[in-house]
Amino acid sequence: MTPTNVLLYDTTLRDGLGMEGLSLSLEEKLLIVQKLDDLGVHYIEGGYPGSNPKDAEFFQRARELRLRHARLVAFGSTRRAGGDTETDSALLAVLNAGTPVVTLVGKSSAAQVREVLETSEEENLAMIGDSVRFLRERGREVVFDAEHFFDGFAADPEYALATLRAAANAGASTVTLCDTNGGAMPDAIVRGVRAAGEAVSCAIGIHCHNDAELAVANTLLGVQAGATQVQACLNGWGERCGNANILTVIANLKLKLGIDVVSDEQLARLTEVSNFASELANLAPNPQQPYVGSSAFAHKAGLHVAAITKSAGSYTHVDPLAVGNTERILVSELAGRRNVLEKLREQGVGIELTDAQAREVLERVKAQEARGYQFESAEASFELLVRRSLDGYVAPFGLEDFLIVERRRHLDANAAVAPDGPASDSEMQAEAMVKVRVGERLTQTAADGNGPVSALDAAVRRALSESYPALEKVHLTDYKVRIINSGGGADAAVRVLIESGDGLHIWRTVGASTDVIEASWLALQDAYEYWIRHWGHVS
Amino acid sequence: MTPTNVLLYDTTLRDGLGMEGLSLSLEEKLLIVQKLDDLGVHYIEGGYPGSNPKDAEFFQRARELRLRHARLVAFGSTRRAGGDTETDSALLAVLNAGTPVVTLVGKSSAAQVREVLETSEEENLAMIGDSVRFLRERGREVVFDAEHFFDGFAADPEYALATLRAAANAGASTVTLCDTNGGAMPDAIVRGVRAAGEAVSCAIGIHCHNDAELAVANTLLGVQAGATQVQACLNGWGERCGNANILTVIANLKLKLGIDVVSDEQLARLTEVSNFASELANLAPNPQQPYVGSSAFAHKAGLHVAAITKSAGSYTHVDPLAVGNTERILVSELAGRRNVLEKLREQGVGIELTDAQAREVLERVKAQEARGYQFESAEASFELLVRRSLDGYVAPFGLEDFLIVERRRHLDANAAVAPDGPASDSEMQAEAMVKVRVGERLTQTAADGNGPVSALDAAVRRALSESYPALEKVHLTDYKVRIINSGGGADAAVRVLIESGDGLHIWRTVGASTDVIEASWLALQDAYEYWIRHWGHVS
Repeated sequence: MTPTNVLLYDTTLRDGLGMEGLSLSLEEKLLIVQKLDDLGVHYIEGGYPGSNPKDAEFFQRARELRLRHARLVAFGSTRRAGGDTETDSALLAVLNAGTPVVTLVGKSSAAQVREVLETSEEENLAMIGDSVRFLRERGREVVFDAEHFFDGFAADPEYALATLRAAANAGASTVTLCDTNGGAMPDAIVRGVRAAGEAVSCAIGIHCHNDAELAVANTLLGVQAGATQVQACLNGWGERCGNANILTVIANLKLKLGIDVVSDEQLARLTEVSNFASELANLAPNPQQPYVGSSAFAHKAGLHVAAITKSAGSYTHVDPLAVGNTERILVSELAGRRNVLEKLREQGVGIELTDAQAREVLERVKAQEARGYQFESAEASFELLVRRSLDGYVAPFGLEDFLIVERRRHLDANAAVAPDGPASDSEMQAEAMVKVRVGERLTQTAADGNGPVSALDAAVRRALSESYPALEKVHLTDYKVRIINSGGGADAAVRVLIESGDGLHIWRTVGASTDVIEASWLALQDAYEYWIRHWGHVS
Repeated sequence: MTPTNVLLYDTTLRDGLGMEGLSLSLEEKLLIVQKLDDLGVHYIEGGYPGSNPKDAEFFQRARELRLRHARLVAFGSTRRAGGDTETDSALLAVLNAGTPVVTLVGKSSAAQVREVLETSEEENLAMIGDSVRFLRERGREVVFDAEHFFDGFAADPEYALATLRAAANAGASTVTLCDTNGGAMPDAIVRGVRAAGEAVSCAIGIHCHNDAELAVANTLLGVQAGATQVQACLNGWGERCGNANILTVIANLKLKLGIDVVSDEQLARLTEVSNFASELANLAPNPQQPYVGSSAFAHKAGLHVAAITKSAGSYTHVDPLAVGNTERILVSELAGRRNVLEKLREQGVGIELTDAQAREVLERVKAQEARGYQFESAEASFELLVRRSLDGYVAPFGLEDFLIVERRRHLDANAAVAPDGPASDSEMQAEAMVKVRVGERLTQTAADGNGPVSALDAAVRRALSESYPALEKVHLTDYKVRIINSGGGADAAVRVLIESGDGLHIWRTVGASTDVIEASWLALQDAYEYWIRHWGHVS
């Protein structure tokens, strides 16, 4: 009884924003809406205008958007107990959002009605019916979000179903069953969805949280039990442990259950959408994230690498390209020599290694890993490590020396503890002096920057640009710092990962040291050396 | 038909180590074994001695361990095709590990037998039977890991079940069904486990991967279909998207399915075990991790905070204390004034704020967040922000000025590109000079360090210790750097989070700036200011 037609409902901009550490500006929210529309999502919830004035502004701006697939949804709650719909400020706010669809949350748990709403069960039913009717009469499609439905259904099934009937009878297009606390087990989800399907004739939706690490499974089981709307968030963002991950749900529905919720082309954008959202939100992407994570199709174990060279797909459940991802071979001290050779082949590096050379490379990887290096996501540094291990390698340049001076200038006696926090940047001054050798030529340059690393970067670029003028196209596109052995406090080793680009290529390098400046320098050096080797002589 | 007795089988030290970025030393592995034993895990897989010489050494050392609950397991594979058990080096290696239990992996998919093993289906059955019998005859309990079982069962159910029978007939205590590629849907798991239960009379185990974000759900459904052994990893570590998370599985089995896999006391250590493992492996803990993550019971939405003040448990599915975690109220620009007041109450800070003061605090939080600050995990900085917003606050000290000089000295012309990677630390030199005012007294000190931050830290401590000698007890216990707006490369803003301790207390502070040194200084300043305010006057 799995439905053939399921509608995707994204609640990233409302429920997803409950996540610790996540906040989005108005502009960023509009970019997310556009991306979700491109992905083929059917409903996009934009916010809670009755609770948050910023959300009201969002809906004003959202009217300018041209959406191709999605309908925009404003979120609100049923009218106040004992109140009147016509004068309910929250209902008016959601109406003023001007969206074609409104989702109203109401209580489905009798206990919650008594303890939190502090009203009667009958009044709650009236609140649901009145509020849905109020919006239907004003031309809105109404989704009823049945909060705490599964907990309410377990404690008092008749009342929980009565709340759904109140919404359906008043004209709701969909009643969405929420596992608000995220603790429902799969069998409870299946029972609840089936009972709801028997109780009302409108569509059923499913809204799961991940508190028991079951959000995606419960969503799929809800669909298999008859739900035709799935509410979920980008990358599984959301309060506490997050909401169901809409990206995994899309891939599972399409590739596993055969429900064409999006087109093949849209599915192939899944990885891009995930990275876009992480980038926009300034959240580190989860490499283990199903389908779209950078490790999702990565192989480290020597045994597995041996098997996939014989039978592609031996250790992958779907074709990575279908979701816009790629298979990767990892190099680590645990890996065999075969991984080293496979890795070079995968990177398209035309270096043939003898067995002894491959063993030498593995030894160097191991020694570097002991210092804090990691080559798994720094392919360019790995290639340089291989090249440097070969006889006759000549580095295109060498850093002879650097000196960095950084000063925080005194503005007034209380600046450091000013209640508004950090003083403005102009108070800080960072300068770097470097000596760089290119061939026989020694160049000494100086530059300043926003901080010690950017000053060092500027000085080195200045020194190298005399020999490689095209270097001006090269930019850092990402810079990550990871503390290793973090127990050691400020003396711990740090690993710096740098991503660089020149408009045509992207490459990643790594440096590690007990000193963040030195680690940054080592990663920067690899970034420039890699670019010079590959593209530096093309003008 | 849910079993009442389920055995926990941890494979962190074998399958878990396939995760990108994860590696553990021998000592660290032994610490993990001890921790898993304390947690009440029944089987602990220590490694693959036939494939990895380091694992053979582990089993040597593991003999010294006194385990109270767990039995140690060595992992290996069935004998080579056409080979002989008596001379099979991998089988001998697993035997020499000297563990009471051995797990042998073998193929259950006919297609894999032909394409990867390149042998006949009959020979594969013989390999399984011979290998299990060989170890049984030498007194080992044998678990058979049926690799690719669910994919094999879908394609050729008879053959997949025949491999289980071959193992069971040769004396395996358990046949464990592996969803090796992690792509099986819940209904396929239930069908496979039920068919296996009918095919063999020994115990059934379940081993799931998270490639479709279903590992925990599939594990539970496997148990509900009759499996009595669950294989899983700490924190969901593992190749690609990870294995089933043993911590979530334990909590779900005990709190949701009512199966007492561990005692109440052991369950209450769940959060501690998770953090211990992350710390040991130098992996950033996942704040969203079910049950044990720092956000797992954290509330940001003003509406939810309002509800939990009325009805505890309104937005939590279990008591956080049962798994050793705690409920938290978050402060963010999205939060209402109520969150600010609740947060102060939760922290036990005796500051009464008027409505206008709480609004002022929210404004400051908002301004700081726009600069890159985040107070959600920096409670000490939040308290200082509140105090600084009140009239009459006097900071215990002020930093007037600092100067940092860092030099990388030239050792030889090729040092920077030495094939062994970074030059030794002695090549780097970092010194800091600071002027600090304590009351009316201005102190100027200098110090050097392993890098600019540790030099700055040392100089400031030296300056403050004249007035606060007990400060020598204060240490950085963690130091994290996060790049925000990472699109901007080396010029991006950075956020530094510092955890400090004095042996009795732990507190966290934050600083943000475009300059990593300034951000570090701001977080350090808060760390010292917080300690001085609370405990600095006690000798």
